[in-house]
Amino acid sequence: MGDYRKLWSNLNMNLEKHDVLCAVLPEIYSKVYLSQNDRPEGMNYFNFVVSEVHGLRIEELDNHKKQGGKVIGTFCVYVPDEVILAAGAIGVGLCGGSQFWIEDGEKVLPRNLCPLIKAFVGAKVSATCPYFQSCDMLVGETTCDGKKKAWEILNDYTPVHVMELPQMKREKNIEDWKMEIKEFISRIEELTGNKITFEKLKETVILCNDKRKALKRLYELRKNIPSPISGLDSLLISQIAFYDDPQRFIQKVNELCDELDERLKSLQPNGKKRILITGTPMAIPNWKMHSIIESLNAEIVVEETCTGTRYFENFVEENANDMDELIENIARRYMKVNCACFTPNAGRIEDIIKYVKEYKADGVIYYNLSFCQTYSVEYKKVEEALNKENIPVMFIETDYSEEDSGQIKTRVEAFIEMI
Amino acid sequence: MGDYRKLWSNLNMNLEKHDVLCAVLPEIYSKVYLSQNDRPEGMNYFNFVVSEVHGLRIEELDNHKKQGGKVIGTFCVYVPDEVILAAGAIGVGLCGGSQFWIEDGEKVLPRNLCPLIKAFVGAKVSATCPYFQSCDMLVGETTCDGKKKAWEILNDYTPVHVMELPQMKREKNIEDWKMEIKEFISRIEELTGNKITFEKLKETVILCNDKRKALKRLYELRKNIPSPISGLDSLLISQIAFYDDPQRFIQKVNELCDELDERLKSLQPNGKKRILITGTPMAIPNWKMHSIIESLNAEIVVEETCTGTRYFENFVEENANDMDELIENIARRYMKVNCACFTPNAGRIEDIIKYVKEYKADGVIYYNLSFCQTYSVEYKKVEEALNKENIPVMFIETDYSEEDSGQIKTRVEAFIEMI
Repeated sequence: MGDYRKLWSNLNMNLEKHDVLCAVLPEIYSKVYLSQNDRPEGMNYFNFVVSEVHGLRIEELDNHKKQGGKVIGTFCVYVPDEVILAAGAIGVGLCGGSQFWIEDGEKVLPRNLCPLIKAFVGAKVSATCPYFQSCDMLVGETTCDGKKKAWEILNDYTPVHVMELPQMKREKNIEDWKMEIKEFISRIEELTGNKITFEKLKETVILCNDKRKALKRLYELRKNIPSPISGLDSLLISQIAFYDDPQRFIQKVNELCDELDERLKSLQPNGKKRILITGTPMAIPNWKMHSIIESLNAEIVVEETCTGTRYFENFVEENANDMDELIENIARRYMKVNCACFTPNAGRIEDIIKYVKEYKADGVIYYNLSFCQTYSVEYKKVEEALNKENIPVMFIETDYSEEDSGQIKTRVEAFIEMI
Repeated sequence: MGDYRKLWSNLNMNLEKHDVLCAVLPEIYSKVYLSQNDRPEGMNYFNFVVSEVHGLRIEELDNHKKQGGKVIGTFCVYVPDEVILAAGAIGVGLCGGSQFWIEDGEKVLPRNLCPLIKAFVGAKVSATCPYFQSCDMLVGETTCDGKKKAWEILNDYTPVHVMELPQMKREKNIEDWKMEIKEFISRIEELTGNKITFEKLKETVILCNDKRKALKRLYELRKNIPSPISGLDSLLISQIAFYDDPQRFIQKVNELCDELDERLKSLQPNGKKRILITGTPMAIPNWKMHSIIESLNAEIVVEETCTGTRYFENFVEENANDMDELIENIARRYMKVNCACFTPNAGRIEDIIKYVKEYKADGVIYYNLSFCQTYSVEYKKVEEALNKENIPVMFIETDYSEEDSGQIKTRVEAFIEMI
């Protein structure tokens, strides 16, 4: 990485602590990613993005801010990117995926809490995440208990605008979400000094749909037997989607897909078991499950998670006569995301079964971040439905540490041999 | 207890398993309650209620049902009792407080979950709770993650009507809760076949306010130094409030308060430290914390919990011109309850400090049921506020088992000596 110390210093970062984090990442990335065989050329761009993860993109954010632009931190796929972009702001996903931040998170949060939440709060408390440091405003949401209350702690550091996500999906709830989006629009107009016009919002709706289409195109390719791209690489792309420049990202993903289209012609069977992962999100650089599973005789062909299909499935209806209709279209699209924080959540079960069939998965691994209660309680119904369809499933609850990696590997190996 | 086997059998209970539960309770009650010295005569009624906990009251519910009446199970102080009573139904609080039910709860729920939730689900799964068995409908709410998703499991056993409690307290949220109450009214009218009239609802608003006044009168007496009634006894009364006949309960609590008024004249200082407990609810027969604390040189003078002040503080405004206004009054009163499932929840911190001063508490014990995330994350802000006021506070996270009782006793003893 180039010399960004001055940039990081201006962001009031703890440089000493940050150095420790920076030292570790290239090693892990090399071990997990660069050790893979026969990676598509198109992954070079994403290798580069990771190598510059706290560098070039941060510089871009800094230039944006120097020109008066604002940076908005988000933590959830329900928050409409369209609105952020239409206000001329840059949105960055701040969910944390590293064990490095847990200790600092536990200074202000209870230990018995989701590691993703402890990590992002820890990233802020330790002042070692330049994305966090670059944000003018954070956008939280009332999704799970942990996040809902974590905003109250984070608000002491940076102002948090909390959107009240409904907990059910009745028609009145879609109306409620539409109102929340309108309020979010007002808030972001106030912050940026820019009015969100109907024209501008139509543009960003199309841009975000184009990003969804690019990811959908990538995932469709994984339906092939075997997949022309590893689950690890696909996960990385899905993680980078949360903070890279949208236009550039769309271009690079499509270039990669062009290359993968070519690869299809010469694919050879590889005898690997095909796995669908479902459950809680995997924030960068959480590659734990994918690296364990793909070190065995298996490939992950799809993720029914926020860092998977939930991010891009369903497009916003682009036809609208006016602002109100367009906002409703946005609300309706986002309310289709099937997260377990909603009750009931039968749609998710239908999605899992559909994806198992479309992606020809041999088995399902249910990935539950430690202490995530919405997903862990929901497991029973998912398991029942999969049993009915004779789809093998195993449940794994885990955090970011390496303590249980050996145990997980043994269990997954047994599962893979059985399916 | 009298012979209720036929009654229990008709309720499709697991008699064998229930016998085990019945055998244990009198012993525990004797050890915890009857060992207390100098209890008010008025507690005899509540002793009797406990001795008949699965008997007489169940018989009353049975008679009510034989006359075509309905029984509604509830799990939260946000659910308006006024509505249940106005429909001619009987409401019973079903939150579970016994370790006995945990094992059965864990058959369908994850282990890392609040014991109160595991207990009530276990009570249903094991068919050993005659209150559960007597219910025609259950009313759930979107409060915490665990409960929100538990209704989906419980619905397989008995129909659950879920009310969507808001997560914030803006004016629009009060409107939302008003709508939810209206929907609840429709649902319960449908179930009971009774129309809830303006006159009837006014009556039950007054009745429920009278119950609140009786409890408030009791708690006011605890402000005396020393309190004329133990925390254990006061807790028991608060627990029984959830399922006893309202009119009888009001009468018996007022009779007890008359006796306590007399007692005040001859109260002698007892040198005990005065404790405020704040946090998560204590469902019957969860007497763990109170029995530990009051076995030491301390008395619990007030509980800022759902089985404490949150149950009765604030009355419903009785003046209303029409049904719509009355429902709004009900919505407004309930939305004042300061549970940690709301964000923000600054009102609770103000309440705790206010009660410490009014009840002249020497210290605060923060009681957090295991895995309850809303309350555990909120602790940090409560602790900060109490530190500012120089009010000593200690945090205890625990479940229903006796494994940590010794440890808790040691910690509390040290706390009491220090304050």
